[in-house]
Amino acid sequence: MNYRLVFKLTGNVLLVESAAMLLPLLVALIYQENPMPFLATVPVIAAAGLLLSHIKSDDHFFPREGFFAVALIWLLLGACGALPFYLCGRMQPELGLFQTYIDCFFEAVSGFTTTGASVLTAVEPLPLCILFWRSFIHWLGGMGVLILAIALLPSLGGRTVHLMKAESPGPVVSKLVPKTSDSSKILYSIYCALTALQVLCLRLAGMPWFDSIVNSFATAGTGGFAVRNTSIAAYANPAAEIIITVFMLLFSINFSMYFLLLCGKIRQVFRSDELRFFLLVVAGSIVLITVNIHTLYPTVGESLRHAAFQVGSIISTTGFSSVDFDLWPEFSRVLLVLLMFIGACAGSTGGGLKCSRVLLLGRCIGREIRQIVHPRSVNVVKLDGRVVEEDSLRSVHIFFAAYMFIILLATLVVAMDNFTFGTTFTAVVSCINNIGPGLETVGPMGNFSGFSFLSKFVLSLCMIIGRLEILPVLVLFGRNAWKKS
Amino acid sequence: MNYRLVFKLTGNVLLVESAAMLLPLLVALIYQENPMPFLATVPVIAAAGLLLSHIKSDDHFFPREGFFAVALIWLLLGACGALPFYLCGRMQPELGLFQTYIDCFFEAVSGFTTTGASVLTAVEPLPLCILFWRSFIHWLGGMGVLILAIALLPSLGGRTVHLMKAESPGPVVSKLVPKTSDSSKILYSIYCALTALQVLCLRLAGMPWFDSIVNSFATAGTGGFAVRNTSIAAYANPAAEIIITVFMLLFSINFSMYFLLLCGKIRQVFRSDELRFFLLVVAGSIVLITVNIHTLYPTVGESLRHAAFQVGSIISTTGFSSVDFDLWPEFSRVLLVLLMFIGACAGSTGGGLKCSRVLLLGRCIGREIRQIVHPRSVNVVKLDGRVVEEDSLRSVHIFFAAYMFIILLATLVVAMDNFTFGTTFTAVVSCINNIGPGLETVGPMGNFSGFSFLSKFVLSLCMIIGRLEILPVLVLFGRNAWKKS
Repeated sequence: MNYRLVFKLTGNVLLVESAAMLLPLLVALIYQENPMPFLATVPVIAAAGLLLSHIKSDDHFFPREGFFAVALIWLLLGACGALPFYLCGRMQPELGLFQTYIDCFFEAVSGFTTTGASVLTAVEPLPLCILFWRSFIHWLGGMGVLILAIALLPSLGGRTVHLMKAESPGPVVSKLVPKTSDSSKILYSIYCALTALQVLCLRLAGMPWFDSIVNSFATAGTGGFAVRNTSIAAYANPAAEIIITVFMLLFSINFSMYFLLLCGKIRQVFRSDELRFFLLVVAGSIVLITVNIHTLYPTVGESLRHAAFQVGSIISTTGFSSVDFDLWPEFSRVLLVLLMFIGACAGSTGGGLKCSRVLLLGRCIGREIRQIVHPRSVNVVKLDGRVVEEDSLRSVHIFFAAYMFIILLATLVVAMDNFTFGTTFTAVVSCINNIGPGLETVGPMGNFSGFSFLSKFVLSLCMIIGRLEILPVLVLFGRNAWKKS
Repeated sequence: MNYRLVFKLTGNVLLVESAAMLLPLLVALIYQENPMPFLATVPVIAAAGLLLSHIKSDDHFFPREGFFAVALIWLLLGACGALPFYLCGRMQPELGLFQTYIDCFFEAVSGFTTTGASVLTAVEPLPLCILFWRSFIHWLGGMGVLILAIALLPSLGGRTVHLMKAESPGPVVSKLVPKTSDSSKILYSIYCALTALQVLCLRLAGMPWFDSIVNSFATAGTGGFAVRNTSIAAYANPAAEIIITVFMLLFSINFSMYFLLLCGKIRQVFRSDELRFFLLVVAGSIVLITVNIHTLYPTVGESLRHAAFQVGSIISTTGFSSVDFDLWPEFSRVLLVLLMFIGACAGSTGGGLKCSRVLLLGRCIGREIRQIVHPRSVNVVKLDGRVVEEDSLRSVHIFFAAYMFIILLATLVVAMDNFTFGTTFTAVVSCINNIGPGLETVGPMGNFSGFSFLSKFVLSLCMIIGRLEILPVLVLFGRNAWKKS
């Protein structure tokens, strides 16, 4: 293992993180709040980052180093990002929030991994700069902090594809253009443009500037931290709900689709199997839930709006809520849990299994049945009209098995806290898929504050495992990862 | 599709089923009960069986026919086996049990698939001959009705391996000896001998003859229908509980192990990876649960006994209970749900994913991690010291994916009944793994009577899907299965 290079890389990312903290510092100055949580943190992280980034190393860089670095960096991101929360909690103990470091770590990991699960029993008493940081890390984590570092500090040369591979979601990396750092720049440009567009739309719909900005951050990263205690429901603003629904769905589509659109290749976009599958699932779920909940709301339009909002929120793995869907009939609740498993499209900012994986798994099952019925026929699995290699299919299968194993094991650990089965299971499913809310105690109007230290740590790990798509974190804990080669 | 052969085979199995009904008929005569439920059913099924078994056909027999026949036959077995229950319900409406045909179908399918999930709110008021039939179908279904038919009516010649493949549990068929019908006879001999041994042990422990026999049937098939309202807890007989624990575990071990033992190949038995994994999981779970529940019972011995009984009951997929484990702490309850997923060993009468599949999935994940850390190393997955072919691994992966998809979809359908998430999810998991009890409403002291017609049908299908290990039933519903070739 090339530790020097891993540490150097870690240093670069810490530099980016400390620079990112200047923004909430600015917010604190604008709103005349106590800037200490950030003033005290920025120099420490920046110094550590500078120190590490000056380590000299050769550029032996293989998938192993990529996986290892990404897992380590994400753990550190959470640990450092938690510091402002912790300082805020120490300085304002009367709030009763962020009282332990594990709570702050959980919240920061939940932010960076764009989960949006919170240990806070209320968010409105917090200073605006803290709320800003909480939402801003969603935005940073959504597209990937490493991809950002690659775009800003392209010091790694051609080897960076291993990093992108380890950090970016989905079964295949979509390299838009031959050079990795150029790809990163294009992705970030699309990301920024869409975010800015959403801020404008929300402002036009009557949302205050601050709320428009932070809610757009949380939507863009498909995170879901809100700045009101009752999430988006607090605004009672149907127009804003519709805007957020549309943008949640936009951010859960593979970003290379936007690149294709920009290049004028509209046909290719509509030929995407994953996109069609995603839209089909979204439309079907909205119809089913609307029918299921139509007696709860005065008009069909309102049922439809809430159904669409919640379906968009869950399948995009954002986790905002426009109503308390934990009060909906069991059918709708289970359908939402199913959508948690499916998740967004590959190459988006969303989490979950990803539509392309679900689609490939389904097609593999179909192939097996065809093979039994017609043993002598030649059967291949296709995606977007092209044959998918057996190796890729095998990775998808292994991903799925590891994913389910981790869900079941984590459920067992969290069960020690003696919550109901529904709470325990959906808390894990929600965290590993980077959603945010689950059912019952961790429902959209609930929170994760009641869990023990161990459960909070395991759930934080689940969030990172989910965000990094399992294998990097398993490599980190593997027997041979720490050996020198 | 060679329909003539499929129907001929169906006829043979119906003949076996009608012959099997002579036993409860005898019980009715012994205990001077109304024999009509069986007297009326036997001739009808026998006549249908005779008619079908005389169909002339060529012997074109391929995996497709095997899968198709097995799925069709198991549906029919349930439909016909439900008739005595239905007639009993019609004749004694004052009991308030077995009032609808779907209830009887659910109960019969639950019996044949050795699930043991019941729609009965009480079993003690039922006639003994009905209780006998209910437990006897566990015994019939445990080893496989088709294997029995092959052993008794070896008219199919060499092609029967496709049938065994479709009906017998586990990733690989264990052919003990070259000839299929000889293998079937050996398996049934071991099965009968073990059952008889258990009857004797239970009788010696002070259980009445009738209860000893039916409880042994339910143990041998790893079914779990009891003849007392509170299952095995009703006897308050620790010796009987220990005997049943041991036999539940014995019946969840691959039967070829007993064949090896009989041949004196003891070493080979202890080299079995699956057996070692199974014993490890059992021992580990017993220890964890004993620690978790030790405050609930006066002595450690009693905690250990109940922990061992419940672990044996769930991992063997029997579903008996010596206490109401739904009242245990959440950790123990979730651990039991995890054991439901794992299930027994391949080639036993138990259900679930099967230990060998779990082991292979785990090893595939391990291989993937090794491959990342050492990309140039050659990696194979081994079982019992032998390399497992990639094709077998692929089937295991596809099995797992199909299995999880079906669980999630069935949960969605059953959710329409508006039970809690814990009830809905564990009802499905319990049925597809052929366990019997789940948690909450369907806990060990609960039952499935509250579900709707649709849910009962879907859960019945899940039981058959689980018992036949998914693919045969999917083939039955596949697009091309019904086409003439």
